[in-house]
Amino acid sequence: MTLSTLKMSRRIRRTPFTEKVEWHGVTGFTVVNHTLLPKSFKNSVEDDYWHLRDKVQIWDVGCQRQVQISGPDAKKLVQWITPRDLSKAIPGKCFYVPLITENAGFINDPVLLKLSENKYWLSIADSDVLLWVRGLALGAKLKVDIIEPDIWPLAVQGPKAVHVMAEVFGPGIRNIKFFNFDWFDFEDSKQLIARSGYSKQGGFEIYLQGSKYGSRLWEKIFEAGMKYDIRPGSPNIIERVEGGLLSYGNEMTIEDNPLECGLERYCNLSNSINYIGKESLQAIAEKGLNKQIRGVRFEGEPMKACSIPWPITSKTTRKEIGKITSGIYSPRLKVNIGLSMIQKDYWNAGSEVYVHPDNGKTVIGQICNLPFEK
Amino acid sequence: MTLSTLKMSRRIRRTPFTEKVEWHGVTGFTVVNHTLLPKSFKNSVEDDYWHLRDKVQIWDVGCQRQVQISGPDAKKLVQWITPRDLSKAIPGKCFYVPLITENAGFINDPVLLKLSENKYWLSIADSDVLLWVRGLALGAKLKVDIIEPDIWPLAVQGPKAVHVMAEVFGPGIRNIKFFNFDWFDFEDSKQLIARSGYSKQGGFEIYLQGSKYGSRLWEKIFEAGMKYDIRPGSPNIIERVEGGLLSYGNEMTIEDNPLECGLERYCNLSNSINYIGKESLQAIAEKGLNKQIRGVRFEGEPMKACSIPWPITSKTTRKEIGKITSGIYSPRLKVNIGLSMIQKDYWNAGSEVYVHPDNGKTVIGQICNLPFEK
Repeated sequence: MTLSTLKMSRRIRRTPFTEKVEWHGVTGFTVVNHTLLPKSFKNSVEDDYWHLRDKVQIWDVGCQRQVQISGPDAKKLVQWITPRDLSKAIPGKCFYVPLITENAGFINDPVLLKLSENKYWLSIADSDVLLWVRGLALGAKLKVDIIEPDIWPLAVQGPKAVHVMAEVFGPGIRNIKFFNFDWFDFEDSKQLIARSGYSKQGGFEIYLQGSKYGSRLWEKIFEAGMKYDIRPGSPNIIERVEGGLLSYGNEMTIEDNPLECGLERYCNLSNSINYIGKESLQAIAEKGLNKQIRGVRFEGEPMKACSIPWPITSKTTRKEIGKITSGIYSPRLKVNIGLSMIQKDYWNAGSEVYVHPDNGKTVIGQICNLPFEK
Repeated sequence: MTLSTLKMSRRIRRTPFTEKVEWHGVTGFTVVNHTLLPKSFKNSVEDDYWHLRDKVQIWDVGCQRQVQISGPDAKKLVQWITPRDLSKAIPGKCFYVPLITENAGFINDPVLLKLSENKYWLSIADSDVLLWVRGLALGAKLKVDIIEPDIWPLAVQGPKAVHVMAEVFGPGIRNIKFFNFDWFDFEDSKQLIARSGYSKQGGFEIYLQGSKYGSRLWEKIFEAGMKYDIRPGSPNIIERVEGGLLSYGNEMTIEDNPLECGLERYCNLSNSINYIGKESLQAIAEKGLNKQIRGVRFEGEPMKACSIPWPITSKTTRKEIGKITSGIYSPRLKVNIGLSMIQKDYWNAGSEVYVHPDNGKTVIGQICNLPFEK
């Protein structure tokens, strides 16, 4: 694995929480949406994994910037960009929405927050959705206003998150259902809080509006969390792979479509709605897939996180049939695990394959369904 | 300055030259267009600066990905996205083209290569121009094909670059004029080579088409360069600031317009052409600017590269009038230098201001025109 310093500049944007994570001794970052995402602190990935499953963590996910779409044509534009049927969507709910090109290639997989009939936020993964929707709107002459507001999500994740959040925002926080949001007071502001987050351990995302509140919000949550053994953390690669949570740019790119990513349930293939890429997606569904996302368990020494895709080959033809794009040793399942697009002939659970990690040692792997079993 | 590890994953794309820069002992990267850009090797920034001015360097600038626009409406689309008048543009030339929104906010500042009347490459800075132009084309129903081809620029920069390039590609390379390009053989392929690059020391950019040639191209240039004392390098912050070369995301963002960036010569403000943002740009020109890019020389100890903008304040009102977005000590000019948008009342050369670097020591600064004097 390459170990190199990340050279900082204004172009790599800091979040309202960056000072706090630096104070906590962050040791590694990645860059998402031209913005710093902390990836490691002083504890090991494995130690943070057990802690996340047991306790509560605070994550600077300010890089999940919002693309705000408002105006008379907002509803029309939002439906146009995703295969997910939003005709019955109501305000107060979050929606995972694949965004695709006219060829059904993945552009991003944001969470959509419906604020009202004419106002939406897209909480994005790593690509400039702002430019995509602004281009579409300008080209099609839609009456919308599209901006990147001063909003920086902060996640509180883990089984104890709800208690910490209740101490800071009041008991009302307990009433928010999964993938719903509501508004809560913080100092002189109203803040949107959703029950959501990039883990399977439960928790909340505060869509902090107003950078100036950043430090005090972090401090308040951290103080309330002390008795629950709160830690600064970040999306955890072991927990994420076990849970089968996909990462745009890792598991899928513009070369893949949502059906290949196992996201059929978010794709309306009927003709009841119109969206970009519908014809392509219908044709792909009709023809059948050649590859689809799967889990892979594989032998060998416990692996550190995969930083360069690890090829997967057929045991018989020796040809490449996939690549592990996110992978690591699971201390709970006591086996190496990974995510990969797998070619059709090999994608059945139980298929045996070869995996080629970057330690040079070829090992036997077994295809499985997602998420990995408990 | 924050020193942190960059955590690698497939999402942070490697280039066909990444293995080579790792072999040469790269010590720091940044991320541009979801792609690694090496920023430092074993020598100091200052040492690399003197070397670049004197010798020749090879830079992995594969992150300058190409957005290829082709098809019957390509010419129309390319003119639509930039205020630069391209009506007399001929194939074989490179054009620096500001891309702006309908509000004249900067989206990117690529170099446009005109391959033919119906085929163009945009060699981009750090934002997803692919999504912007695909959105525009889809919205406006233009007949174009827009892709990110398998092209990864490699730069050879410095006064000795021409000799090295002539050894690899033949004497014909000497005939390419600045911001022109031509085609040259490499193994069984034809490669586009431009006389251009992100330094003022002269040199070339090879638009390598075909990742598979990457390692051998690097090796061939490096071998030919040995007798000229070639080194692996990267855009040099001292040289770039001295030369007044702007960096998208650092000196300007979507909040700034090309007139504020001193790029009037690339903005046609007449009504002879139509492009996105024309009315806004005309209105801005009519009303006059409130801020514009300038150089700042400032006192104090020799500064390392600015990683977080350094505020500039008025000596009289003490209010903020700018921010140094790229700055460092120039060992040649023997003074700290920086780039900043400066408010109108203070932008005249010679104006005295206060600069507040992150070492906590306020110092006197002086505004100057760009580029910094020889």
